Amino acid sequence: MHTYINKQLENLNWNKSPRELYHPIGYALESGGKRIRPALVLMACELFSGSKDDAMGAALAIEVFHNFTLLHDDIMDNAETRRNRLTVHKKWNANTAILSGDAMMIKSYEFLENTPVHLWAKLFPIFTRTALEVCEGQQYDMNFESCEEVTLDEYFNMIRLKTAVLLGAALQLGAIIGGASDDDAQHLYDFGIAIGIAFQLKDDYLDTFGDEKSFGKRIGGDIVCGKKTFLLINALTRSKNDDRLLIQNTLADKLMPEEQKISTITAIYEQLEIPSLCEKAMSDYYNRALQSLNQITGNTTDKQPFVALAQQLMGRTD
Amino acid sequence: MHTYINKQLENLNWNKSPRELYHPIGYALESGGKRIRPALVLMACELFSGSKDDAMGAALAIEVFHNFTLLHDDIMDNAETRRNRLTVHKKWNANTAILSGDAMMIKSYEFLENTPVHLWAKLFPIFTRTALEVCEGQQYDMNFESCEEVTLDEYFNMIRLKTAVLLGAALQLGAIIGGASDDDAQHLYDFGIAIGIAFQLKDDYLDTFGDEKSFGKRIGGDIVCGKKTFLLINALTRSKNDDRLLIQNTLADKLMPEEQKISTITAIYEQLEIPSLCEKAMSDYYNRALQSLNQITGNTTDKQPFVALAQQLMGRTD
Repeated sequence: MHTYINKQLENLNWNKSPRELYHPIGYALESGGKRIRPALVLMACELFSGSKDDAMGAALAIEVFHNFTLLHDDIMDNAETRRNRLTVHKKWNANTAILSGDAMMIKSYEFLENTPVHLWAKLFPIFTRTALEVCEGQQYDMNFESCEEVTLDEYFNMIRLKTAVLLGAALQLGAIIGGASDDDAQHLYDFGIAIGIAFQLKDDYLDTFGDEKSFGKRIGGDIVCGKKTFLLINALTRSKNDDRLLIQNTLADKLMPEEQKISTITAIYEQLEIPSLCEKAMSDYYNRALQSLNQITGNTTDKQPFVALAQQLMGRTD
Repeated sequence: MHTYINKQLENLNWNKSPRELYHPIGYALESGGKRIRPALVLMACELFSGSKDDAMGAALAIEVFHNFTLLHDDIMDNAETRRNRLTVHKKWNANTAILSGDAMMIKSYEFLENTPVHLWAKLFPIFTRTALEVCEGQQYDMNFESCEEVTLDEYFNMIRLKTAVLLGAALQLGAIIGGASDDDAQHLYDFGIAIGIAFQLKDDYLDTFGDEKSFGKRIGGDIVCGKKTFLLINALTRSKNDDRLLIQNTLADKLMPEEQKISTITAIYEQLEIPSLCEKAMSDYYNRALQSLNQITGNTTDKQPFVALAQQLMGRTD
């Protein structure tokens, strides 16, 4: 599936004029990634015995939209690299990244127009609603940086919007194109939301408790940044006065060496049993995902790939 | 029409969460402007006796899209003010302007979804193609800043993309919603392209030869910036070696007082009869616009408002 999608992406022609606009789009799209979202569109379509050809427009729309959000997020975060290459705004400049990103966003609608016209009344509102939600999620994520306190509800709402809804929408669009009933497409959407949230929880977990080599990022980055993760929010809620103060002072301490920060906070997390709390939450969302999958009643071929996907996610230590 | 559209825009609710995302959109949209584009959508719809209600979604889509482009253009140009108020990226910051702009762009599709579904197969591809063209126009305009030489063909292509296609598309969308044939909608599109180009030529003209008070901007701004306008491109083409060198040296001179720059270049323009050349070009596009209007054969009510619009444009000295 991955190779098939990459081939479709390679066939797109970004060698157009004005080159300054289109070349950075090609660069952003050729930089790899797991192509999980377009794969979900195609898998969902095939679950209801639909044709991959009918779903490819939606798959490309979702993937190009996703890469547009990365491009603009990278400007906002002032990120230097993405997938081991310079980000677009570093390789070119911020103006190029803004305008090429805008064109990508519009291009994603152009790809969506390559779906069966009689389904547009369903597909377009889902795509548009989801795209807006992703912007809202990014805004909440940025707000959290300057927030004193973030509640667990606010956290879950943020990751649902920023990460999960696009996975859900990928599946829902694919299902509709494949011929699913509205109910079945909704169940698959719910499956996507649940694995999306579980995926983000896992990411939070691995950032502190993962293995540096297989995780691919430096362990403890979230602690150093004082990021409001599932771990930190729960630690602040669970801790008594003194511990709470210790967490806050450690995170705010500008002189403390990073390694000491990481070890101090990690020790508090372990003492408060945050790791098992996180594992429990992941497991809950895993079960919710499987429940949604079980509710699909239509004429499906084989749900096994979706179970495998959820398992792969849960078993992932890298 | 103007009041009616403003009322519709005021009825939109931007008082939503996250406030940091939606509030700047409300700010950008309430800042006025002539609302010419949504007015064109409604006028075109009414020309074919369509209902304004059916066309309002497209009118709002076009207006919100237009204001999205202004918002992002203002970041790229690092503009301080727009319509006598701080630009979004100055009132808030660049990240806010990027993300709120993205949300506006997506919102414009949401408004377009408030059009009759059976017309989507025609409306969406026009809107998407046009949106991409506007990005291309902005890119060409930015490219021109660092170009040694811009040809007249390149100039006309740039203003067509950056300015004219959105006026054309506004009319085409309105006509289709009003029930026009494809041919008639195309004629109205062509009318829009022609008045859009004439409008930009007029703007170039007034920037040098207008009256400061009624033009509302400082006269000579384009000369000071060395902007590749219709006037400059033609002056460079028409001038002999010495004059050509004088133009280039004057524009490149960093020590020459701005007033002297403006008077020197303006004198050369007059000597080369560039003003009458520009008036001739405007008049050509005006005539093309009227020709396109004449070609509309369907059951139209009254083309007079479109003639008035073109005349108003040509007679405009402010």
